[in-house]
Amino acid sequence: MVILAHVVAPEAGQIRGWNMKDWGHPVAVDRTLDEVKADDYDAIVLPGGQINPDLLRVNEKALALIRAFYQQQKVVAAVCHAPWLLIETGIIKDRKATSYKSIKTDCINAGARWEDSEVVVDQGIITSRNPGNLEAFSAKIIEEVVKGRHAGRSAA
Amino acid sequence: MVILAHVVAPEAGQIRGWNMKDWGHPVAVDRTLDEVKADDYDAIVLPGGQINPDLLRVNEKALALIRAFYQQQKVVAAVCHAPWLLIETGIIKDRKATSYKSIKTDCINAGARWEDSEVVVDQGIITSRNPGNLEAFSAKIIEEVVKGRHAGRSAA
Repeated sequence: MVILAHVVAPEAGQIRGWNMKDWGHPVAVDRTLDEVKADDYDAIVLPGGQINPDLLRVNEKALALIRAFYQQQKVVAAVCHAPWLLIETGIIKDRKATSYKSIKTDCINAGARWEDSEVVVDQGIITSRNPGNLEAFSAKIIEEVVKGRHAGRSAA
Repeated sequence: MVILAHVVAPEAGQIRGWNMKDWGHPVAVDRTLDEVKADDYDAIVLPGGQINPDLLRVNEKALALIRAFYQQQKVVAAVCHAPWLLIETGIIKDRKATSYKSIKTDCINAGARWEDSEVVVDQGIITSRNPGNLEAFSAKIIEEVVKGRHAGRSAA
């Protein structure tokens, strides 16, 4: 199996990771939000951090892209603080999910059935707790993409 | 009127502000969480930023201190992302409040009656939107401290 992944961001150029207590490595942006549509992909993976999902949850284009993956019954995966984006889009409601510990209350208040597990899957919605769970998170994304569309899912 | 303010943090030393896109000025810590109790103060002011309240909302000592101010009917003020701490302590439930725009959904899901105003007061709970509203936020804190205890407030 060949996996083609594009790093997508609101603007072209570079994005930066966060390494524990300061800015981390820069990563090249492959496509801007204006250049992609869910039709061309099998899954969307939402990385965490405290800053990134907080900025994206007020970005209407980002929210529309996430909703499109969801409505096309494709895999939507979110780790650490990225479940905020599942809160903002309403996707987390009535789903089994996990998150970074600090946003557990926000997830529960949004209607999630929150679990303290390294990775949780509910009809193609994959959530994971923190950077220590990335191996299980990545393995589950591949497993769910191979499994294909999640037709049982009701629209958000 | 003389106002004595202490900068309180989990650990002694310095804390750092955040200046738009990177770390800002360091500020000396006057007292650690272990060294203070609500009995000795009239108000607690919770600053914002994406990182600071996200760390404090999983700090049981910080949450206990905020709850103590609330239970003693003292002023509790939160700006930008700090209303997350009012969510975590349950204080925001059924209150008129505002916040930074990105956490509006979290506030509403926690039971707040959210308003898009520069500063909102509900029985001594003061909330404000963003750094552009700091003048109104500060003026309201002083006004509410002068007004004194908020006896009408029900316990969280």
